[in-house]
Amino acid sequence: MGELAELFAPERIAVIGATEREGSVGRAIMDNLVTDFDGEVVPVNPNYNEVLGLPCVPEVADADADLAVVVVPPHIAVDAVREAGEAGVGSAVVITAGFGETGSEGANRERELTDVAAEYDLDLVGPNSLGIMSTPNGMNATFGPENAEPGSMSFMSQSGAFITAVLDWANDEGIGFKDVVSLGNKAVLDESDFVREWGDDPDTDVVIGYLEGIEHGREFIDAAREVTGDTPIVLVKSGRTDAGAQAASSHTGTIAGSEQAYEAGLDQAGVIRAESVQELFDAAQMLANQPLPDGDDVAVITNAGGPGVMSTDAVGESGLSMASFSEETLAAFEEKLPEEGNIYNPVDIVGDADIDRFRDALDVALGDGNVGMALVLSCPTAVLDYEDLAEATVEMREKHGKPVAACFMGGERVAPAAEILGEAGIPNYFDPARAVGALDALRRYRGISEREYEAPTAFDVDRERAREVLESVRGRDDNRLGVEAMGLLDAYGIETPAGAIVDSPTAAEEAAADVDGDVVMKIVSPDILHKSDIGGVKVGVADEDVYDAYEDLVTRARNYQPDATILGVQVQEMVDLDSGVETIVGVNRDPQFGPLLMFGLGGIFVEILEDTTFRVAPVSEREATEMTEEIKTAPLLRGARGRDPVDRGGIVETIQRLSQLVTDFPAILELDVNPLVATSDGVKAVDVRLTVDPDEL
Amino acid sequence: MGELAELFAPERIAVIGATEREGSVGRAIMDNLVTDFDGEVVPVNPNYNEVLGLPCVPEVADADADLAVVVVPPHIAVDAVREAGEAGVGSAVVITAGFGETGSEGANRERELTDVAAEYDLDLVGPNSLGIMSTPNGMNATFGPENAEPGSMSFMSQSGAFITAVLDWANDEGIGFKDVVSLGNKAVLDESDFVREWGDDPDTDVVIGYLEGIEHGREFIDAAREVTGDTPIVLVKSGRTDAGAQAASSHTGTIAGSEQAYEAGLDQAGVIRAESVQELFDAAQMLANQPLPDGDDVAVITNAGGPGVMSTDAVGESGLSMASFSEETLAAFEEKLPEEGNIYNPVDIVGDADIDRFRDALDVALGDGNVGMALVLSCPTAVLDYEDLAEATVEMREKHGKPVAACFMGGERVAPAAEILGEAGIPNYFDPARAVGALDALRRYRGISEREYEAPTAFDVDRERAREVLESVRGRDDNRLGVEAMGLLDAYGIETPAGAIVDSPTAAEEAAADVDGDVVMKIVSPDILHKSDIGGVKVGVADEDVYDAYEDLVTRARNYQPDATILGVQVQEMVDLDSGVETIVGVNRDPQFGPLLMFGLGGIFVEILEDTTFRVAPVSEREATEMTEEIKTAPLLRGARGRDPVDRGGIVETIQRLSQLVTDFPAILELDVNPLVATSDGVKAVDVRLTVDPDEL
Repeated sequence: MGELAELFAPERIAVIGATEREGSVGRAIMDNLVTDFDGEVVPVNPNYNEVLGLPCVPEVADADADLAVVVVPPHIAVDAVREAGEAGVGSAVVITAGFGETGSEGANRERELTDVAAEYDLDLVGPNSLGIMSTPNGMNATFGPENAEPGSMSFMSQSGAFITAVLDWANDEGIGFKDVVSLGNKAVLDESDFVREWGDDPDTDVVIGYLEGIEHGREFIDAAREVTGDTPIVLVKSGRTDAGAQAASSHTGTIAGSEQAYEAGLDQAGVIRAESVQELFDAAQMLANQPLPDGDDVAVITNAGGPGVMSTDAVGESGLSMASFSEETLAAFEEKLPEEGNIYNPVDIVGDADIDRFRDALDVALGDGNVGMALVLSCPTAVLDYEDLAEATVEMREKHGKPVAACFMGGERVAPAAEILGEAGIPNYFDPARAVGALDALRRYRGISEREYEAPTAFDVDRERAREVLESVRGRDDNRLGVEAMGLLDAYGIETPAGAIVDSPTAAEEAAADVDGDVVMKIVSPDILHKSDIGGVKVGVADEDVYDAYEDLVTRARNYQPDATILGVQVQEMVDLDSGVETIVGVNRDPQFGPLLMFGLGGIFVEILEDTTFRVAPVSEREATEMTEEIKTAPLLRGARGRDPVDRGGIVETIQRLSQLVTDFPAILELDVNPLVATSDGVKAVDVRLTVDPDEL
Repeated sequence: MGELAELFAPERIAVIGATEREGSVGRAIMDNLVTDFDGEVVPVNPNYNEVLGLPCVPEVADADADLAVVVVPPHIAVDAVREAGEAGVGSAVVITAGFGETGSEGANRERELTDVAAEYDLDLVGPNSLGIMSTPNGMNATFGPENAEPGSMSFMSQSGAFITAVLDWANDEGIGFKDVVSLGNKAVLDESDFVREWGDDPDTDVVIGYLEGIEHGREFIDAAREVTGDTPIVLVKSGRTDAGAQAASSHTGTIAGSEQAYEAGLDQAGVIRAESVQELFDAAQMLANQPLPDGDDVAVITNAGGPGVMSTDAVGESGLSMASFSEETLAAFEEKLPEEGNIYNPVDIVGDADIDRFRDALDVALGDGNVGMALVLSCPTAVLDYEDLAEATVEMREKHGKPVAACFMGGERVAPAAEILGEAGIPNYFDPARAVGALDALRRYRGISEREYEAPTAFDVDRERAREVLESVRGRDDNRLGVEAMGLLDAYGIETPAGAIVDSPTAAEEAAADVDGDVVMKIVSPDILHKSDIGGVKVGVADEDVYDAYEDLVTRARNYQPDATILGVQVQEMVDLDSGVETIVGVNRDPQFGPLLMFGLGGIFVEILEDTTFRVAPVSEREATEMTEEIKTAPLLRGARGRDPVDRGGIVETIQRLSQLVTDFPAILELDVNPLVATSDGVKAVDVRLTVDPDEL
């Protein structure tokens, strides 16, 4: 156990606001604690001498407790926590509601609470929490109707009601927990703290959770990465859709971060994200109870062809694949199975299969080195007893040490078999697709557990020069910069076309003379967003035409928008767009996760087809490489349709350098390099736009 | 009831091969029939005088039956069916296995069976069938362990074992059926027949099924369309994935048709396709028991914010939307709900909600004209009784006549409430996402029930000229045609660029003179597939260069492939590809569904991004229009990024004309028009390739 040992394994718990009043929260918590807790419970209430037969003390200072549970009304809750801190109590669970979730007065109260916790270095859960549980010591410090059964999953939830519902269901299903935490408003301890705690806890095999928001995204990524090598984390993060995000915001006041940031961030953190309650528990139970497979190939053993086909479809749609059996396996099946059977996968051992045939087939399949895991799939028949089959399934799982899922189809006749399976940690489902989905969670976690997280590359850059470019925004009416900020890219080692921004026709001629071949000329003005639309761009200008072109561009801009600030004209080397691929690298700043990098192919691919990929910065070389590989249009970078592959290494490095730039300068709110043209010879950033917050410089 | 009335409602059933032998199929069927069947059962077996106390006749001719169930061994099964036919029996269920599923001898036997059925006009189920059931008369003519409970769903399955599993489960869940059919090998009656039958059956509210293949795809589409206006059809069609298709093929010998054809065909048929057993029954139960909604807007009433957010995500990911309440509704909620509640959707009536607050909130929400349906979502609390909530839910559903789903979360405490809900046809789920998925099935079916199927437009075409072009394949070494077949498109009214195929340089000059402006010249040879790669295409050839270009093209082709047949050189009007959008219309012939049309944008959009859409031909104008609208790149046709919209009507008409062409000529095995260039002025088919089966001409 880690730093929160005292929170989950206290010896004495002070219940501040304890009472016997029927129907009150203080009574419910006292009832729950008194029932099962191994340690001592000390009611704190100046109005009583005794609560539920326990001697009651007037002040927390008299309780000598290591955990305080606070159930007093909101206006005195902060004082109660302060007194606990003064009394040397190290941990607190604030059940009391009426804080940040209720408007500005409550928000002030919550800030006070956070300050008090910091002052006394308190590990504080809540406020507005259902409470916490820990099964090893029987602590149920919640006001919910059910206590958790012992188990190896630890569960956190931003919804207390959801905990109530899950426990009611889990207790009937025989699903147990190590610790349970209702996060409440997360004024102090949040998901990152519990992930760290349970990662260090040998009694927690899987961390599961329901979250509506992750306040400190980068911290969460770092915390989760430390853990997910050994301990899987499965989360429902709601607010995936616009409607859901809005609902989450009105429920817990969660600021809506972008779904892209959550998707990228949770993936980078190594979290298995479940999309529904069913998926959450299907995955978690599998991960809590079964060994990790060596490979992703599934053997399906069935007495029914049709469901066998259904399970094969489900395998085909998952990340798993159907195992190809070895010659020995096929020979063994050939010998053991009736002629009407199918010795290939899914193995159809035919409707008249008895327990011996089922056990033998499973034994053979699991013994095959090509098989990573198995699904035992059965329809009810007169010659097969499901309890026997359950025992054989458990036996073979133990013998071979490979994960097994079960799909014994039927109604109540399945119940006793399901119980045998459940005790051995093998879930049973009516629907083959669900069983396959549960197996797929093992594959997903195996990939995560094998990850090695590299540190981001630290490139040698000219940070001072970059700062100077960013500082130039201070003179502006708005906080945007355009091509005039290309020096920012140069400073971070990102190649840009040769050229300069000039403010006279003769300077333009000089600039053009320094560039090989014809040039592109563009008006530079923060006020003119769509340069092409007003004729503010000239492509392929020969040296002798540069003077006139300059005059013409400036005249057009003045005619179009007389009050526009004109910073000059950009004279730039021609970049051959036809032989290259236009890409976009963008960054915006997510309220939870910070800088979010986007990569995609330019033009319609990003704008219409939305073929984009995201990562929270800073990214490692591997993450930047993945971005260039996982877009649907990636084949165009690899040289589809007879073209030369482009310099993908150059793109990967540009993404990393931009990642470093936006990490170094939180002042950069948004930044787009568009296009970043990639050819077989290299990459060049042709244009840039960014928004800067000068107060952050 | 329709044409199969005798099959499902016979008065006398002859069981050919009836026996008392324990463990035999003949005994199991006798047991099942004797138990519940309202009519008479006549055992037929020359070896017995009596079976299970019923007088046994030696021959089917003595039975005076209207349905024969055949359980004799395979080598005498066909004779048994013939005797039944001779005896005037109108319907037969052949349980006997050992037909098409077992190799060539069995396949011959199955052909014989089909012939006999045709000779005597027998409605025949099977062979290799578990049997059939019909609950109104208690007929269980299967050898399975369970009989169905009465209900309004009729169920067909290509897997007998799956029926066994489903009944075992459904009987425990209180889910009933009208008819159940194990399709077996479908030697005579298949899914189309049962769809038609149940469409005419007033006692069948929903048709559900598990299929591994649909033999006669077009017939199925037509049969289903007749039905789905009134009766929903929900199917699992397995073999969706490559692995699944292979497994289906080895299970029932189903020839793998393409998944694209199934997807298009089932959609065109108006079938709701379920991807798993869970989805199948979730949708079917909702459709069997609930009214259709007027709109797709859902109100969520909940005592728990977190699950409310989860349900909102699920709504956001479905085709449904969250209802926006009227001013009156909001005012009513404002009055009735506590301050901490949320009057907007999802409506959070807070954890201390009692039954009155829940009922009132549901009443208000369902009374809002903006609300099409509702989800009642509850976590367990001390102040709420789930049975009361179930009764209130049923009451409000009845009062407002709008569909309602329930998500009462928890364990066994839910069971009595779920029973009350279930009796009223309201399913209850632990997972909000499943409840929303079930509601979404109502939306899907509403759309289907409102469809109007138009006949395909019959264009005035020159069928004889088209036939002549197709006939030209007879002179070829292979059966492919290329640009030389452009006349085929002309014959069907599809515009092609001006030009001709010529076989001398002077003829080329004459052809070029007939064309405005420069021309494109291409070598024409069935043996040279990639013309561009060998320099076999010249673009923008001026009139004066046409002679030399001809010579050059022919020389290059000869050098490249000396033995290639060179049909000449195509001289074609230049089509401005830059101002247009290149599209592709393709056709191939699916073994089950016949001609399958494909549409997409040319080049990488089809080849790399696979942004394509499919329809089974012939298509109506509406279906052709949908094809141009549902690809992801559709915005490019509508004129994205400042370009003029292209002539979409021209594309739609071209798709329809090609649909007519491939329907008129089954000899066309494959055909690609690539590119079909669409500009704002119209569309032109620039190139064509096709494969022709001359034997079909």
